[in-house]
Amino acid sequence: MAKISSKAKTILYPMPAVLVGSMIKGKPNFMTVAWCGIASHEPPAITLGLQKKRYTLWGILEYREFSVNIPPSTLVEKVDFCGLYSGREQDKSNLFKVFFGKLKNAPLIEECPINLGCVLLKLIDLGSHDLVIAEIKEVLVDENCMENQNIDPYKVDPLIYLTSIRKYSKIGSIVADAFEVGKIKKQ
Amino acid sequence: MAKISSKAKTILYPMPAVLVGSMIKGKPNFMTVAWCGIASHEPPAITLGLQKKRYTLWGILEYREFSVNIPPSTLVEKVDFCGLYSGREQDKSNLFKVFFGKLKNAPLIEECPINLGCVLLKLIDLGSHDLVIAEIKEVLVDENCMENQNIDPYKVDPLIYLTSIRKYSKIGSIVADAFEVGKIKKQ
Repeated sequence: MAKISSKAKTILYPMPAVLVGSMIKGKPNFMTVAWCGIASHEPPAITLGLQKKRYTLWGILEYREFSVNIPPSTLVEKVDFCGLYSGREQDKSNLFKVFFGKLKNAPLIEECPINLGCVLLKLIDLGSHDLVIAEIKEVLVDENCMENQNIDPYKVDPLIYLTSIRKYSKIGSIVADAFEVGKIKKQ
Repeated sequence: MAKISSKAKTILYPMPAVLVGSMIKGKPNFMTVAWCGIASHEPPAITLGLQKKRYTLWGILEYREFSVNIPPSTLVEKVDFCGLYSGREQDKSNLFKVFFGKLKNAPLIEECPINLGCVLLKLIDLGSHDLVIAEIKEVLVDENCMENQNIDPYKVDPLIYLTSIRKYSKIGSIVADAFEVGKIKKQ
């Protein structure tokens, strides 16, 4: 297969499309983030790559708490809206039904079936972006997305951000069981 | 909607399932990683959350280079195999067709339609895991996954790792155009 070399850029499939909630000047604000990944098991930690000028970064630095909310695909218009417009110019505090869990400065979104309450651990300066590393302190899941005490991702119906073609998609069909399909078969 | 509170844990949808390639003791080794995210635009940077005991971490620390390879869904058995067995006990150097790009210590996988060559920037100790932050120095893409000089993610056909139900899936149908569907409609 011929391989085409392109300039170094941020390519990864899939990327999530999550709503990051923070308090800024006493009001909830929400921003869409695709540059989000899991970092550690103990403490359970998550990363966000945020451009230095982001309004959300102010809130995270001020309160040292924030939320990561996993939106269902039906919320796509509001998800895109939160990626297009900064809280500096656009009040997003009434866009969702907001509630609070254990963390009093991490606004959670009622309409999102999964909500993570996070506390800032470290901020790493990487150049154009700061990498936020945070401990996940709380996980809330909609009751009707649970199946046998386990989260059913198809009931969550999360969005995927497809970079390069700049589209949102759903998760697709199951391919195989993890930690199973690759097992060496004993003779 | 009733929300169920669970203990703090690493929940994120979707997560990728990529193959991380490194040289260890002069031989290529490959490990499956779901805890991978984008961190920064300039420099283009990527993160990996790796358990401290991982063999791959030795290789990354020794050579300060590694690869991130995005496997197609047809490679699921080998992807799972690389997540199940450590390079300490299982020689994985002949599992794939290996080639090298610009980085002489970042083994790339021919069968994976997207290959990233990466150079270690920082290693952050988070407790159970180290967070590897690396600069993406090179991107290689299979010619037949390109469409109008753009990567077509459906031709790439990447795997998604679905945590909690521990399954791999494909990407699903398109929901909407990003940076478009949420635009405020001018009257």
